[in-house]
Amino acid sequence: MLNQALAHARNQREQHLDQLIEFLGIPSISTLSEHKRDIERAARWLATDMTNAGLEDVEVMPTAGNPIVYGEWLGAGPEAQTVLVYGHYDVQPVDPVDLWVSPPFEPQVRDGEIYARGASDDKGQMFAHIKAVEAMLAAGGKLPVNVKMIFEGEEEVGSPSLEPFVIEHKDLLAANSGLVSDGRIVDTNTPSLVYALRGMSYIEISVKGPKRDLHSGSYGGSVHNTAQLVAEIIVSLHDENGTINIPGFYDKVRELSPEEREALRKVPYSLAQWQEETGLKTPWGEKEYTLLERTTARPTCEVNGMWGGFQGEGGKTIIPAEAGAKISMRLVPDQDPQEITQLFGAHVQQFIPADYTLEVLEHVHGWPVITPIDSPEIRAAARAYEATWGKPPVFTREGGSIPIVATFQKELGAPVVLMGFGLDDNVHAPNEHFRLEHFYRGIGTIIHYYHYLSSQV
Amino acid sequence: MLNQALAHARNQREQHLDQLIEFLGIPSISTLSEHKRDIERAARWLATDMTNAGLEDVEVMPTAGNPIVYGEWLGAGPEAQTVLVYGHYDVQPVDPVDLWVSPPFEPQVRDGEIYARGASDDKGQMFAHIKAVEAMLAAGGKLPVNVKMIFEGEEEVGSPSLEPFVIEHKDLLAANSGLVSDGRIVDTNTPSLVYALRGMSYIEISVKGPKRDLHSGSYGGSVHNTAQLVAEIIVSLHDENGTINIPGFYDKVRELSPEEREALRKVPYSLAQWQEETGLKTPWGEKEYTLLERTTARPTCEVNGMWGGFQGEGGKTIIPAEAGAKISMRLVPDQDPQEITQLFGAHVQQFIPADYTLEVLEHVHGWPVITPIDSPEIRAAARAYEATWGKPPVFTREGGSIPIVATFQKELGAPVVLMGFGLDDNVHAPNEHFRLEHFYRGIGTIIHYYHYLSSQV
Repeated sequence: MLNQALAHARNQREQHLDQLIEFLGIPSISTLSEHKRDIERAARWLATDMTNAGLEDVEVMPTAGNPIVYGEWLGAGPEAQTVLVYGHYDVQPVDPVDLWVSPPFEPQVRDGEIYARGASDDKGQMFAHIKAVEAMLAAGGKLPVNVKMIFEGEEEVGSPSLEPFVIEHKDLLAANSGLVSDGRIVDTNTPSLVYALRGMSYIEISVKGPKRDLHSGSYGGSVHNTAQLVAEIIVSLHDENGTINIPGFYDKVRELSPEEREALRKVPYSLAQWQEETGLKTPWGEKEYTLLERTTARPTCEVNGMWGGFQGEGGKTIIPAEAGAKISMRLVPDQDPQEITQLFGAHVQQFIPADYTLEVLEHVHGWPVITPIDSPEIRAAARAYEATWGKPPVFTREGGSIPIVATFQKELGAPVVLMGFGLDDNVHAPNEHFRLEHFYRGIGTIIHYYHYLSSQV
Repeated sequence: MLNQALAHARNQREQHLDQLIEFLGIPSISTLSEHKRDIERAARWLATDMTNAGLEDVEVMPTAGNPIVYGEWLGAGPEAQTVLVYGHYDVQPVDPVDLWVSPPFEPQVRDGEIYARGASDDKGQMFAHIKAVEAMLAAGGKLPVNVKMIFEGEEEVGSPSLEPFVIEHKDLLAANSGLVSDGRIVDTNTPSLVYALRGMSYIEISVKGPKRDLHSGSYGGSVHNTAQLVAEIIVSLHDENGTINIPGFYDKVRELSPEEREALRKVPYSLAQWQEETGLKTPWGEKEYTLLERTTARPTCEVNGMWGGFQGEGGKTIIPAEAGAKISMRLVPDQDPQEITQLFGAHVQQFIPADYTLEVLEHVHGWPVITPIDSPEIRAAARAYEATWGKPPVFTREGGSIPIVATFQKELGAPVVLMGFGLDDNVHAPNEHFRLEHFYRGIGTIIHYYHYLSSQV
């Protein structure tokens, strides 16, 4: 059945491309309200295509914002794995439109790449999922797993409706694992799998001391300066190695296994690249971890902003009554962002003199996620990449967060596989493109994935 | 001659008050350009009064701004001391004028106080100097010292023309010491002498690191955060005791003598007052020094402002490319502000990684000044207060600076006696007033001062 499905997909390439061109031609820009009708058109187009592909109960479901398109195929039966596929059909704006070689919504193939807004982010990648299911159903009438798909239309505006939707439809969306193709691999010859994302605790502190700004000539030397106090707090957060100094901070950190570290060492991330991107020469931070580990696999604590006193031109001789900072911590499994916020608050509080006040405000908290490299999902995905790309993938982590992944993990209990097929692709920039070979290999990778996932169980 | 002069002054009290009322009636507000002609009128009025008092070569001297009125009496001869008297005839604005009980430029005596803008700051106090000289000349035909007087019209706008004037007229203004009455005593029963003022080095630092703000999710943990770096610099400036940590910073500090510390202990400055003024309970800083010593006699280093990264609402996940701070150090004799700026810069530089840049900008530097309590001038002034007020003065220092005092000391080599006669007096506020008893005692104190100063030589 695997080979028939792959053969079918191969035979349908031209048709798949034509469909993709049609899909990419809809200017479904979510950031611009004048494209509201294009968004709806894209959702309907998608629903039709999903139905044509053999998905069932396809529905354009309203939300407070743009609709979410849902479809499922549950023919593998209750004993089989259920995979929840996520993608988004909305796209970024196209400005500056003058810089596009071909118009952003008139897709054009040049040198094996399809140029259009959304080609890689995310229409092209999510469309591969529909085509994979279509090929499997067309070739053998069935899939080895159950599949549910949700495609949202608000990813480029921060997915405001998605989490409420997931929480409201937990039963509908119940699945053993998630599958998301909205990212990149290292390069054409180096497939890669992001198996962990960091969470976050973003905190703002505000320290108030004297009842008003004081004249530094009259009170200097007798008052604990609030700006200095905030500086003392900031400095206290790290030791000289760059390790975080908050008591209890590392208690729940799942240590990197030797296998993981070995796997991460295979990710091509060079000092030269870091130097080019930062403009700096020498990295800072925990010496016992590699640069990639520091930026993806270790929790961090960064000052995102700080302030206190006079910032205008010239000099003003005050002791500020108030100073503050915004500090965010990136978290790794199994740190609990709310607990980290509490530990942070308790740590900071000890610096505050009895006659000063401290406010601690949590702006954001997000959970770290991991799908371990020895989990059935990641092992199946790795085999699928190897089968399709001719090389096993490298395993990597990402420093940032993808909220939907944390939501799937937290609300549905579903580990998520991030199965990216893109490259740099000028996403969010003019001349976005997607390599057709990657589109086709993507379809193949997905077909293999379902095959290996089911055969492991 | 002393007693005749004092008796003469006593006999002339009514006339002196009438003249003061006339002088206070001129709305010589320097901050408002519509009062330009009043400023000139006040300068001319003053010149006439000085001439009437017996001063010679009285002249309204133009500057780039408001005129300076000069007069002298040099009849004591080249062997005698020469005293340079400074005051200012310009006044603060009067807003909110509704809050005045009597109109600010229609002086009114109520309960032994004269109410008018400038009554205490500084017309009333400077006028006492003219009347003292007048009384001595009227009573005995001569003074035991030579006197030069300059009265400026720009003190309330920062004295922009005064330093250039002093530098340009060094010969004209040459004197053995300066005498300024533009301040206050502790209370009616506690005369006080401010014998030292602090200098200042006001510095702004700016640290630049990465070539742009970096995403903290992608680069956090691998980059020395510029806001953290500035925090590290700020924290490095003090040890846990509040003592300044910059190498060499204290090298030139003239230690407080046991006599000075003993004298400072007599100044009524209570913890309760500090608590009331700051709104705090517990002072910070060098434990081995009293609160008054910390705020007046010890050099300090205060953060007046700091900044870095995102300060808007909500959260933004960046590592700031740049951060900075404004830091001012109050200096005591014999610290050299330019040298302190250099020491500060050298200290800060060591924190800067090789691939970061540091800018150090000196906004202001001012020299500390001291007229030692065992100097002939301070001893004469102390005796003059005691003779007039019935109690010896307490000796105190001030935390801030009075630029003209540093200029006199630096440009003319003249130690300055700060002989204040005011109290709180609502200076810079509605219903400014000056106690008539203080005005009359002021005249007596000045007469005594000249007497004791000359008899000591």
